[in-house]
Formats: sequence, structure tokens, C-alpha cells
Amino acid sequence: MSSIASLIDRYCLGWNAPSATEREAHIRAALTPDATYTDPRADNLSVTQLLDHITKVMSSRPGARVVRTSGIDTHHHCGRFAWHVLLPDGSHLPGGIDFVEFSTDGSAIRRIVGFFGPLALKEEN
Amino acid sequence: MSSIASLIDRYCLGWNAPSATEREAHIRAALTPDATYTDPRADNLSVTQLLDHITKVMSSRPGARVVRTSGIDTHHHCGRFAWHVLLPDGSHLPGGIDFVEFSTDGSAIRRIVGFFGPLALKEEN
Repeated sequence: MSSIASLIDRYCLGWNAPSATEREAHIRAALTPDATYTDPRADNLSVTQLLDHITKVMSSRPGARVVRTSGIDTHHHCGRFAWHVLLPDGSHLPGGIDFVEFSTDGSAIRRIVGFFGPLALKEEN
Repeated sequence: MSSIASLIDRYCLGWNAPSATEREAHIRAALTPDATYTDPRADNLSVTQLLDHITKVMSSRPGARVVRTSGIDTHHHCGRFAWHVLLPDGSHLPGGIDFVEFSTDGSAIRRIVGFFGPLALKEEN
């Protein structure tokens, strides 16, 4: 597995680990200290705010796990990958795609912007 | 059509208009002066560099047009949409997805990061 894939999967562990202490260790290992996180329900969170957000979101779905479902396309310190939320019964919720930016040396994620669900249908002209 | 859709479609006209003068007018209307453009073959181009890039890319495919093929999902000054390149014979090349960031007032695009083709398949574990 590439170092970028390991990095993204460590970020996912930051959602999935059972304790707040473990989640924080994974998130702080995968993200730069000044990283930001944005998704449809979260506006430009700092790392500390993201940790609170993860705790809130995942505590509403006990046993759920964020699972990466695609490879990671990267170019010029940018990347994208798909994910979904796997439930304890083996079913999954509609997923999304995360767009990420990496630090200059590629060792950490400095920005995450997530989108939920499939692409919107094109409007009628 | 929403103002965001109009904005994205104006940006697409900046790829498709027949003359460099028209392309520049559309691009400068759709992008902030300090906007950047990145795709697998272009690293953080300025507006002026993007105009040169468009001229080069589109002159290699006479009559081709960039066509938006999805709606535009937006949240927190971020957006995504899919596109493909329509050829004069009605066929199209594999497309991609652009992630965009908008100016604070939403009136212009300040950053574009494009990815080509479908998402990568997940590697074997």
C-alpha cells in the first residue's frame, strides 16, 4: 500500500477508533496542525473542532465505520477518494467523496473538503 | 438556472469560445484575479497561465467543447461538478470532475482542482 493510502487510511482510523484518545492520535498523525475540515455539515473546522465533530457524529451511530471504497487519485499535492459508512449489520449508508490537499512533503493532510452522496443530476435546460 | 450554475457555465465558455479574446473575457468574468487552476497536467496556474493552457489544449482538438454533465453540489463556498469533452462528431472523451472554491460573496471562482476519468479502483489489500 502506498504511503498516501496509508495516510488516508490513518485518517479514516481517526473516525473509527473506539476511544477519543485513539482517534486523536490518528487524526493528529494524519493531519497537519493547521489542517481544516469542511463537509456539508461542518465549516472549516480546526483539528480540535474536527475531533469534537467526529465524536458527535460517530456516537450517533455506534459500531459504524468510515471505509474507503476507492483508490486515491493524486496529483500536485491534491487527492480524491470515495468512502461510505459501514454499519455493524454489514449494510452501509450512502457515502461520499473527499477532496484532500497534502502538505508540501506529502507526509500529512492539510485540507479536507467532503461531499455527500452521488453527483447531482444536471438541471433541465 | 442558479447563479452558481451560470458561473460554472461561463467558466466552461472560457474553454469553448472560438477566439482567445472571447475565452479571456469569459475566464476573467468567472474567476477572481488571483484564482488558481490545477489538473493532472497543470500545476497551480494563474489566470493568465490558464488562458495559455486552454489555448494549447483546445487547439489540439478543433471543434471540441467542454460540457458540464452534472448539477453542481455546493456547500461552504465549495463545489463539485462533472464534465466531459464533446467532439464535433457527437462522441465524447472520458471526462472528469472539478472541485472548485468560490469567493466569499460567491460571485466568482477562486480555485479549481480537476481530476480526470473515474475514481481509481481500490487497491487489493
